[in-house]
Amino acid sequence: MFIRFISTGGTIDKIYFDELSEFEVGDSQVQHILAEALAEFEFDIVPLLHKDSLDMTDDDRRMLHDYIVGDDVDRYVITHGTDTMQETAEALRDLENKTIVLTGALSPARFRTTDAVFNVGMAVATAQVAKPGVYIAMSGQVFEAGTVRKNRSDNRFEKI
Amino acid sequence: MFIRFISTGGTIDKIYFDELSEFEVGDSQVQHILAEALAEFEFDIVPLLHKDSLDMTDDDRRMLHDYIVGDDVDRYVITHGTDTMQETAEALRDLENKTIVLTGALSPARFRTTDAVFNVGMAVATAQVAKPGVYIAMSGQVFEAGTVRKNRSDNRFEKI
Amino acid sequence: MFIRFISTGGTIDKIYFDELSEFEVGDSQVQHILAEALAEFEFDIVPLLHKDSLDMTDDDRRMLHDYIVGDDVDRYVITHGTDTMQETAEALRDLENKTIVLTGALSPARFRTTDAVFNVGMAVATAQVAKPGVYIAMSGQVFEAGTVRKNRSDNRFEKI
Amino acid sequence: MFIRFISTGGTIDKIYFDELSEFEVGDSQVQHILAEALAEFEFDIVPLLHKDSLDMTDDDRRMLHDYIVGDDVDRYVITHGTDTMQETAEALRDLENKTIVLTGALSPARFRTTDAVFNVGMAVATAQVAKPGVYIAMSGQVFEAGTVRKNRSDNRFEKI
Repeated sequence: MFIRFISTGGTIDKIYFDELSEFEVGDSQVQHILAEALAEFEFDIVPLLHKDSLDMTDDDRRMLHDYIVGDDVDRYVITHGTDTMQETAEALRDLENKTIVLTGALSPARFRTTDAVFNVGMAVATAQVAKPGVYIAMSGQVFEAGTVRKNRSDNRFEKI
Repeated sequence: MFIRFISTGGTIDKIYFDELSEFEVGDSQVQHILAEALAEFEFDIVPLLHKDSLDMTDDDRRMLHDYIVGDDVDRYVITHGTDTMQETAEALRDLENKTIVLTGALSPARFRTTDAVFNVGMAVATAQVAKPGVYIAMSGQVFEAGTVRKNRSDNRFEKI
Repeated sequence: MFIRFISTGGTIDKIYFDELSEFEVGDSQVQHILAEALAEFEFDIVPLLHKDSLDMTDDDRRMLHDYIVGDDVDRYVITHGTDTMQETAEALRDLENKTIVLTGALSPARFRTTDAVFNVGMAVATAQVAKPGVYIAMSGQVFEAGTVRKNRSDNRFEKI
Repeated sequence: MFIRFISTGGTIDKIYFDELSEFEVGDSQVQHILAEALAEFEFDIVPLLHKDSLDMTDDDRRMLHDYIVGDDVDRYVITHGTDTMQETAEALRDLENKTIVLTGALSPARFRTTDAVFNVGMAVATAQVAKPGVYIAMSGQVFEAGTVRKNRSDNRFEKI
């Protein structure tokens, strides 16, 4: 079983330097999360983008789409900013014979309290057991692409 | 979507008092894990047993089996000690039309570094997306009951 | 033994909402830190300011100074942003018969990895055992006011 | 400024393996605590004993005493089990011209929630600013040797 992780930026990877600095997107936290999880499967991590999801463009989504089309892997976990996760999921829906799970975090993985670890756990399981398709794993739930939105005022993902 | 969590004890729920005390099984950590995960689905937690899994008997497994048979729920996550998790999974294999996922932890959920959060994340996703059956979610992987063993010397779960 | 904590803002109390939000100063983390420390002494927390220390003005320092002059307490721990902590310490140096310790954090207390807890521990001990005066507790060290600067490039406090 | 840390065992350094193992004393957590604290002073760590403090004998205390007598350092932080910390503090009271601070933890440093980090912060500050003598830094307070006891039922240190 092999999973390819693609990191694109977003809150999950945010880091903080000090008062003069902004809160910035850092390296993928997936490796640390899998190490702490005592995970024992084959994987790699491809850092494709490094953006807040509000800054993600159609070109970025096309690039991601084309990357996966041309790539010889069956299972993907894509870490992504939460604000446009559903748009990116939609942009990947035509991909066939691949199980693609988007996840991220509402608070950074480097925080003492974060949803990142649980979310990546959900995504890793979904990539293994779900039938091919595009999914979003957030708010304790696994949604199919096209059936979910982020409710910003309540800070959660929910079924449309 | 409703998930019933059944806690049976094991390392995941271990607590430590002080030098005169042993390390003991405490209350289920599932509620804290789901709160930190910002999970937004319906669930409850049934504390059925409170044991190290090495102390679990055939009677305990029969009781757990009968509880689920007589219970009107489709999705279960059972937290369980790791040493005999596969035996309990086997004992539940004849149950039909239910998605049952056993998980636990190699280090306690109260530790600063623990696999518990990730594992419960995997189990919650598996309970939602897998077809009915009995599964073990450990070591970053989702195994079907009967295909997995704990490798004690390497401290991990692996396919038989 | 009574310690009055005065919170003024700074990295120690920073919180993060989500991608649309900035990293903002939240409520004082001192209460959580003392609870986790199992601290058993009398204290209160006075939230006097709520600023990055780079935004702190001479008026702010005068207000803090006058607050302490008119206040009937012997021991203070002031949580403060790190960038101008030494200026504020200087501004308080003429205060007599009081033990005043400034501390803060180079990474937020809400982070999984933070110097905040250790620093508040140093400050609480210094407020108890040091002779009256103004101190800065950072980088594992207790400095007297006027003998210390923040080395921004190395991200640490050091003796002048 | 140089501090010598002497580790003797106790809850602060406890580790947990799995269900077949006991909770055992592991390596000193001081190095990890100082790294996270971004501490910038010279120190070393001498692992002298590896015991629950209830197992500590008069011979152990004599050995610790003689070690410090023959050692050319002014500031010590001794990590120690909490149950007999005050006996060891008493046994060191005749040492002159040295600042010796005993500390430890009521819950292990490896726990997600622990008093260890704060306590070591208090001890490090006390070793720097207190006049020579023997101190115990626990429960948010710095006590002089001979004035403190552990209240086991309330799980705290308090003035006699």
